[in-house]
Amino acid sequence: MENKLDGVEKVLLMGPGPSCVHESVYAALSRSTLGHMDPYFIEIMDDVKTFLRTVMQTQNRMTIPISGTGSAGMETCFVNLIEKDDPVLVLINGVFGKRMLDVATRLGAQADALEFEWGTPVVLDRVEEKWKSRHYKMLAVVHAETSTGVRNPVEGIGRMLRGTDTLYLVDAVTSLGGMTVAADDWGVDALYSGSQKCLSCPPGLAPVSFSDRALEVVTGRKTKVPNWYLDISLLTQYWGGKSRVYHHTAPINMIYALYQSLLLIEEEGFENVCRRHLDSHRQLVQGLEALGLKMLVSPDFRLPMLNSLLIPEGVDDAGARNRLRNEFKIEIGAGLGPLAGKIWRIGLMGHTARPENVTRVLRALKEVLGR
Amino acid sequence: MENKLDGVEKVLLMGPGPSCVHESVYAALSRSTLGHMDPYFIEIMDDVKTFLRTVMQTQNRMTIPISGTGSAGMETCFVNLIEKDDPVLVLINGVFGKRMLDVATRLGAQADALEFEWGTPVVLDRVEEKWKSRHYKMLAVVHAETSTGVRNPVEGIGRMLRGTDTLYLVDAVTSLGGMTVAADDWGVDALYSGSQKCLSCPPGLAPVSFSDRALEVVTGRKTKVPNWYLDISLLTQYWGGKSRVYHHTAPINMIYALYQSLLLIEEEGFENVCRRHLDSHRQLVQGLEALGLKMLVSPDFRLPMLNSLLIPEGVDDAGARNRLRNEFKIEIGAGLGPLAGKIWRIGLMGHTARPENVTRVLRALKEVLGR
Repeated sequence: MENKLDGVEKVLLMGPGPSCVHESVYAALSRSTLGHMDPYFIEIMDDVKTFLRTVMQTQNRMTIPISGTGSAGMETCFVNLIEKDDPVLVLINGVFGKRMLDVATRLGAQADALEFEWGTPVVLDRVEEKWKSRHYKMLAVVHAETSTGVRNPVEGIGRMLRGTDTLYLVDAVTSLGGMTVAADDWGVDALYSGSQKCLSCPPGLAPVSFSDRALEVVTGRKTKVPNWYLDISLLTQYWGGKSRVYHHTAPINMIYALYQSLLLIEEEGFENVCRRHLDSHRQLVQGLEALGLKMLVSPDFRLPMLNSLLIPEGVDDAGARNRLRNEFKIEIGAGLGPLAGKIWRIGLMGHTARPENVTRVLRALKEVLGR
Repeated sequence: MENKLDGVEKVLLMGPGPSCVHESVYAALSRSTLGHMDPYFIEIMDDVKTFLRTVMQTQNRMTIPISGTGSAGMETCFVNLIEKDDPVLVLINGVFGKRMLDVATRLGAQADALEFEWGTPVVLDRVEEKWKSRHYKMLAVVHAETSTGVRNPVEGIGRMLRGTDTLYLVDAVTSLGGMTVAADDWGVDALYSGSQKCLSCPPGLAPVSFSDRALEVVTGRKTKVPNWYLDISLLTQYWGGKSRVYHHTAPINMIYALYQSLLLIEEEGFENVCRRHLDSHRQLVQGLEALGLKMLVSPDFRLPMLNSLLIPEGVDDAGARNRLRNEFKIEIGAGLGPLAGKIWRIGLMGHTARPENVTRVLRALKEVLGR
């Protein structure tokens, strides 16, 4: 019988995630499966929690990978912290801010959106004005907007909220592991990420962290969390405490892989990892500009790990990306929503963020664009 | 730095899942990650859908693996099909029936429970009587109750519901891939399973299937599905149709693994797979009885893949299981809920269901129990 897996090529993943996976992470994935209540597996779970706390710069005891992809992390934060009619302020300057609004609205929140032009960051003054207009239970913002490549001023928003009773929710899907995410210093109450971006693990897990204050809000809910699978109180009984209580069967091998990718970051040193992302980003931007290409985002707000460039006039968007994929074995990302057909997104996430990969994509682009 | 993964032992997984994983499935897991919109990956997705339809015996076009473990499949079925105040009948004779009740109740359903003694199957006459007492939108039952080892008469219930407007939801987490699950013949409208039982793939995916009638119910909802991540209409746009619309980043490598485990079933032939489960089951029961041990479930309702035996008096439950795990490298399952401390659960799921494994666990039990 034909086995399609035999035809899986090694592609240089320079899209918006998944990113390239280190050989040792693939090896971790294929370690022997243990039971989800096995004492040795529980030790691995504990180490994953410790590693995650380090990379998130938090002391939060409730710091675990959710058994789903990044969007399951988003769902987890909203469904646990929000009840029907709770007022929530969602800042939007891209697809993932919009997604948060959709998630919150489906859960019955009174979700107000404050929108900013895509490709620009949210503006603190306008956020403060809007936030003061109503007593919000929670404010939600995306740190690194994957759809545009913009870095939002999450630290400043945290400063504004400090000492108030508004919960602070940050989407760190694309930022975590590639730039500083200082959850405690920034006063973040809930944070979620994904395994397949700068952590360079295959997709399938969503690291989340809840502050003690956030957990108190969960404990004080008037209604049960309307999602058994993502109920953080039930998950706590499996992931924390002395005697573990079975909840659902954890994705064992994916957790091995996450362990290994976090170990790689520890071994390299987080500062070195961040520097590598920044260096690759600078090399890429310089190279793109040398080809006469233009970046979408102004230099002050660019993400190192997600680089949006304007598709030059007259170039066939899909045709060029297909050539990159088929001839050069490189994946780059298309634009989303209003930016579809207008930008390309080049990811430099985790293991992908290396000078040789930047050189390779620049050479390929030069060829494909005939420059 | 110490790498805890180096200490992961090869354990014979004879608990209630995860089950043993074939070497080729581990190899599939560690194939190069592709992008979630990559045309070649989409071909693999399409084949996974076809394989799943075969093993579920259904023509349902909406047959996909959900990006979460088995319980996420349960959540998916309820959250899409049920709205607030919908009357639902849940049949309960174990942990997983209770879990369905919890999930339905959290979603605001008017969920009625019909309970049966744990270790015995649900009784058709009583089901019919209860079902006739109210106009139920949905009836939910567990096919193979993993907490007890009981097979429920899902075919008979399907016959009772045929031609009525009650939706029929079946939990096939433990049965799928190890015994017949004839979704279409039985009139099942929604079905969910898990990757880590008889499909013998690591945990992390939940195959689900929705009939066209179930999809019409979703389309006709008065309210949006209060779960963005598991919204089946959004998932359809990614998993089906000609042009795929990005929803969330699929767990690529887990889907490779599921592909490979389904391919193994195709290659062996489903009838042979079922026979292997049954043969292993018979060998096990015979061996246990020869050791003077007693089964919980009467012969007519036993599952081949999940065998519950009564812990003999005077035996230290946890102590014996620890010896099996540590000395013999075999995991068996503890009892859950009211059966904790009273039964052990020996899984013969997928790749685990082989004569040499049965022989090995019987020898180990003989030693540990001093028989």
